[in-house]
Order: sequence, then structure tokens, then C-alpha cells
Amino acid sequence: MLHKEKRNVIVGQSGGPTAAINSSLAGVYRTARDRGYKKVYGMIHGIQGFMEGRYVDLSEHITNGLDSELLKRTPSAYLGSCRYKLPEIHEDEELYKKIFKMLDDLEIDCFIYIGGNDSMDTIKKLSDYAIVTGSEIRFVGCPKTIDNDLALTDHTPGFGSAAKYIGTSVKEIIRDGWSLETEHGQVVVVEIMGRNAGWLTGSSALSKGEDCDGPDAIYLPELPFDVDAFVEKVKGLLAEKSSVVVCVSEGIRTEEGKYVCELDNYNDYVDAFGHKQLTGTARYLCSLLSKEIGCKTRAIELSTLQRAASHCASRVDILEAYEVGGAAMKAADEGDSGKMVVMKRLSDDPYQMGTEVKDVHKIANDERLVPREWITEDGTYVTNEFITYVRPLIQGDVAPVMVDGIPRHLYKPGFQELL
Amino acid sequence: MLHKEKRNVIVGQSGGPTAAINSSLAGVYRTARDRGYKKVYGMIHGIQGFMEGRYVDLSEHITNGLDSELLKRTPSAYLGSCRYKLPEIHEDEELYKKIFKMLDDLEIDCFIYIGGNDSMDTIKKLSDYAIVTGSEIRFVGCPKTIDNDLALTDHTPGFGSAAKYIGTSVKEIIRDGWSLETEHGQVVVVEIMGRNAGWLTGSSALSKGEDCDGPDAIYLPELPFDVDAFVEKVKGLLAEKSSVVVCVSEGIRTEEGKYVCELDNYNDYVDAFGHKQLTGTARYLCSLLSKEIGCKTRAIELSTLQRAASHCASRVDILEAYEVGGAAMKAADEGDSGKMVVMKRLSDDPYQMGTEVKDVHKIANDERLVPREWITEDGTYVTNEFITYVRPLIQGDVAPVMVDGIPRHLYKPGFQELL
Repeated sequence: MLHKEKRNVIVGQSGGPTAAINSSLAGVYRTARDRGYKKVYGMIHGIQGFMEGRYVDLSEHITNGLDSELLKRTPSAYLGSCRYKLPEIHEDEELYKKIFKMLDDLEIDCFIYIGGNDSMDTIKKLSDYAIVTGSEIRFVGCPKTIDNDLALTDHTPGFGSAAKYIGTSVKEIIRDGWSLETEHGQVVVVEIMGRNAGWLTGSSALSKGEDCDGPDAIYLPELPFDVDAFVEKVKGLLAEKSSVVVCVSEGIRTEEGKYVCELDNYNDYVDAFGHKQLTGTARYLCSLLSKEIGCKTRAIELSTLQRAASHCASRVDILEAYEVGGAAMKAADEGDSGKMVVMKRLSDDPYQMGTEVKDVHKIANDERLVPREWITEDGTYVTNEFITYVRPLIQGDVAPVMVDGIPRHLYKPGFQELL
Repeated sequence: MLHKEKRNVIVGQSGGPTAAINSSLAGVYRTARDRGYKKVYGMIHGIQGFMEGRYVDLSEHITNGLDSELLKRTPSAYLGSCRYKLPEIHEDEELYKKIFKMLDDLEIDCFIYIGGNDSMDTIKKLSDYAIVTGSEIRFVGCPKTIDNDLALTDHTPGFGSAAKYIGTSVKEIIRDGWSLETEHGQVVVVEIMGRNAGWLTGSSALSKGEDCDGPDAIYLPELPFDVDAFVEKVKGLLAEKSSVVVCVSEGIRTEEGKYVCELDNYNDYVDAFGHKQLTGTARYLCSLLSKEIGCKTRAIELSTLQRAASHCASRVDILEAYEVGGAAMKAADEGDSGKMVVMKRLSDDPYQMGTEVKDVHKIANDERLVPREWITEDGTYVTNEFITYVRPLIQGDVAPVMVDGIPRHLYKPGFQELL
């Protein structure tokens, strides 16, 4: 069934970028080469760009070991990403025919897609269509998302680096708060990404240690957010200390299901998947606190900084992303299709991780949330079990390659124009 | 005139914290010890806390070389800071009598104050009062501010680390913007600190290099901000590229002198010096752009992250801060008073820096702005001269001491309670 002679591979990146998604790309490329594939194509802006005929020969981009190392240290999606959802096969079979014709023309054996929930839907549909039509192209997904919300995998590449940045930055914010005394106290509200899953927001607790008490309260999107109880909680904290730092998920909702940021919003963009751009949660809460309590407040959104901070990447994360890219390529090479590579934790201490492949039908469109028992009973912090789970994923550093005092990223002349 | 036998030193931190202010504290301590002073006291929350009798013996905090190294890597003001302006001597001489009585009781020979413009005013007034009363206590200022707006000094410790963080983060934000295509283009507006001086905002251009075009436009507070021209500029940029990143100072004002953030503000705190809390400039501009152009927008405030990011500190900056602390102590030891240490650039390439002492009367309350000729004629970028000036200040890294994946800061049990 497999081709005797190996032909070509195509790889794409999809969904929100991370600090580790390019390390997976480097891993896919390396393993494809090691396993004897001729060409490794990269889709520009994922499946969406590919359908417009946009792709590159990756050998022009990863020309040597230094390029590969720079790629691992380059944030965002090197090839460009997309948020495109394929229609159901029965809705537009012509589109599928077109895609497969293009793949056949490029003599593709393996199609690797690096992405999150929405991206695994693409792998599912394309591999389904391959079965229906008897195509021998293998479609394998490589997990990626800072949100850490993919089902069946212990965690996702990209999460560890974002968690490390959040733990580091929140610790610096907390320390900054010690500096100035304010008459009625001051409250910093830090807004962290993660619409439905609180993995990143909970990771702010990584700042806690012998030299830092960590945030004073943490609110995850898994539990309904009670605005009045929040104000009371902060009042109580201010009675004890003059500088309070609270971390909240961008996606916290009231009991009625209304996003807190919608209580005071100025921006109502909706992305291609119908997701509203969430922003302004911290600002709304700060405005409320200064009104209700009269304290000084400051809203800090970690915004895209938290997903792009390659300069603060976790070594474990970057290396795992590379391995998982290689594992996806290996799986496709060995005949798997309609599968995603998942990470399986073999041990917490010492931390050991292995990979497996799972049926993508069991993964796509399914979100993994922080379990209730990893959130404290009063819903304002994460437990030690949560920390024990995350801590190994932020270990070690990836020294940036500094040029003139600033981290260098992989860049090939003329490439930006392709994006 | 000088005491034959050296007695004690007191040091305080004042104004907004930085990533380097503690390195200066370490430098003061080390030089005071090396020069034979008995005790080195630290004021808790600067002169304001000291007047309440709050101070510590620093030898309990810097007990060995490792403590000193951790202190250099600890953001925010270790001793706590204040924004307190002393009254004029004739307005409240009793207060001055009280302060000098306290200093005499502690057998202080040298009073070192690490701070910015407002803090040098304290040095000026106390040294004036010493002259008036014949006190032999020497008062010397040690410059500190991320804003880089102190007169007579080539630059200020704290600026280099903030500039490095800004260059690094803006580069990551720009790269992040390459990732996703948006139908009508996307604009990120990054809001950077610096009320009147654009040194930090201009430093976003450090992101420019062989692998990055830098921000698409930069607006400093030195020039009036024309809202309509800004919208036209962005329109023009979006006609050429789909992802636009613009950096603006928090302090940009219209021709009429109105802060842009006041065109849409939700918060009107005023600090002890009558400075309004500036925030919301980027948000206002994003809201305007999405209304006028229909593009996707994202506002990012670097907020306190930019002044607290020890994890991304400049080695040149941290070492210079240490040296300048030592130089302030040396000056006081050798009899200077009413002086501030300034930095004098001996050479750009190779970069060489020396210190001098200058009369604090020439410095206090005087702001050094970005010269007009270092801003492009159309007012939307900084020139190469600006970059040549800043580049040496961001060189080299200070590896954080990582514990459990997160940078360790100096912390002594029970100390936080003193703040």
C-alpha cells in the first residue's frame, strides 16, 4: 500500500501562533529528511493559503543546522497560519477534489498539520476524504496551542513556554507592586489568554515560591465568575496588604454566561470560527474596583506577548515541540492517517514524556479544561496538584541567539512578501 | 571637615522602579563597605518611610556575594520606593530639623538617594539645608529612571534594560503579526511608557534588523500628535501590507496639548506630584482605527512589564547601575554633596562610559527630551543617530538565576512585612 519509493511531504501551521510551533516545523522537516523524503513543502498560511496555490520548498528556508536552531527560537508561525475551517465533505466535494488534485500534482505522500482543536478538524476531514476516495496520502496532526486544551494529550507544545513567560512576568509584576505605597492600596489585575480553559491563567501561580507569594487570587474560566464576591475578596485582601495582584482569564463569565469583558466592551470582532475577540476583562474589573473601593488600580493584558515570547521559552517545551513534530512525521511515514500525536507523561519526578498516536476523531473540537479538583474549593486559586502538573513543562531555557542585543529570528530575504 | 573615623551610610530608592535600581543599591552597599563605613542603612520607601522611622540595616539583607548577585537580578525597588516631594525649607523647617536629627542619631555621614528627577529635588533640598545649618552630612544622588530623561547625563541606569525589553517584545509582536491574514488588515498599537520623553518609545526601533523591519511607525511625545494624519498614515501602510505595528508613547498629545488617552479615558488618578496616570492611548487609537478603516486592531500596553523585566535585562545596564551606585558612594565619601553622578560617554564604538559628578541644582526638575533631529522630518520614526545612541546600552545579558523554571529574586524572610 505504501509507495515503494518515498516522494514528498507537505506541512502546514494553523491556529494561533506560539513560541514553539516553529520548533515542531523544524522537527517535521528534520525527520522527513532523515526518513528519505525528497521534498518538504510548507503551506503558506495553512490549508487556506495552500488552496490558493501558496507553498514553498522548505529546503530553501532550512538550509543548515543554524537555520534549524534559529527556527526553534523564532516565535509566531514561520509559514504563516490560518483560521480556516473546511466545509463538510458533502457540502463542497469539489473543494476536496481540488485539494487532493493539488496534493497529487505535488506527489505528496504525507500531509502534516501543526495546530490546535480547529486544525485537527482539518486532519479529520481530509483523512476521511482519503478513505472515501482510496487516496494513499496520510494525514497526521501535530498538537500545538498555548491554551493546552486539546483532548487526550497530557499537554500541548507551546503551553510550557507561555506558562513560563506568565509565571516569570507575573512574578515581576508582583515585585513591582511592592515598590510604591498607596494610601488606599493598589490592585493590579492581570488578564491572561484562554477562552474556556484556565491552564494559562492558573500558571500565574508558578510565580509562587520561597521569594514570592504568587498572585493573591486567580480566576479561571471553568467556574462562573461572581462580580460581587470578587469585589469582596479584593476588599478583604486590601485589608491585609497594600499591594494586591489578581490574575483573571480573558474568558471569565458570569453565572448567566455573559463574558465579563462584555460588561464593558469597545470592540466586537468575531473570527472565522465565530469566536469573539475577548479583551477588556481586566480593564472592566479595575474600573469597578476603583469605583467600589477607591483603590488605585492597573489593568495589564499579557496579550500576544504571552504567546510570542520566544526570549523566555521553556527548553522542555521547545525540545518536546521538536520531538512531537518528528513523531508526527514518523507516524505518517509508517502509514498512520487520521491521527494526531499525543504526549503521554510517563513520570512526574523525574519528569519523563513519551508520544503516542491517537485517532483524530476523538480529539477534534473537544476541549480539555482544568479539572474542578485542581481549583481550590472557593474557586480563587489552583491547587498544588495543578502546579505539580505544570512545573516540569517550564524547566530549562533556550538561550536566544543575540545579535546587537536583540534575539535573532529565522528570516530569509523575500520571504515576508510571500505571507 | 570630614570625620576622621567613618561612621554610617544611609541609602534610599525613590520614584518609579526599574530592572536596574537594585543593582545600584548593591553598588552603593559594596563601595560603602569597601571604603570602611560601619553600617549601611536602607530607608524603607525612601525619604517618606524614613521620616516615619522605617529603615533597615542592609547587612542583614546583603549577607554574601550570592545575595548581591540576586539583588542585581531583582526588579522593582528592593527597599520600597516613594513619590514624595519635600516641601521648600521655608515652608516647613521643622520637617528638615526632624530629618537631620534622625540622621544625626544614626550617625550618618553619607546619604545616597537613587532616583529620577523628582528624587534629585530631595538631594538638592537636603544638601541646601546642610549648607544652611553647617551639617557635615553629604547628600549625593544616583541616577535612575527607565525614562532616560535626566539632564546632564548621557543616559540613566534602568533605561537600557527597559529598551532591551521593548526592542525584544516589539520584535516578537511584529513577528506574531505575520502569522494570521485578515481580510481588511490588522493593526497593533503598542503603548510605551514615557510621559514627556520618547526614549523608550523610540527604542522600539531596536527591533529593526536583518530579520525584522521594525515597527511601521513610531510616535514620540516630543511632537504634537495629529490624529487625522495618524489615521491616514495607517491607511497608507495597510495599502502596502496586511499587518501593521505602530508604537506610541503613553504621553502623546494633540496640538492643543490634550493627552490622546484623555480623549477616551476611564481612570483619572493623579499621583503625589500631580502627574495623571496615563493609560488607554493605544486603546483609543485602536477603537478609532477600527471605526475609520474597518481593520482588525489590537492594543498592547507594555505597562509595568517594561520596567520590571529583569529576566530580559541588559548586562551593560545592570553593570553600569552597579558602577554608578559605587561612584555615588565614592563621591560622598570623598566629600561631595549636593551632587549627582552622571554618565559620560567616552566613545560609541567601541562603547566606553565613565562617570562624573555634577551639581544637582542643574539637574533637578529638568527633563531631557529626544532631540528634534533624532526624529524623522515627518515625525513618524527615529533616525539612525537615535539607534546608534541606544544600541550600546542594550548589549549583553544577565542570566537569571533560575529556580524551578522561574527567575529567583532576593528575598529575606519577614522583609515584605516591612514594606
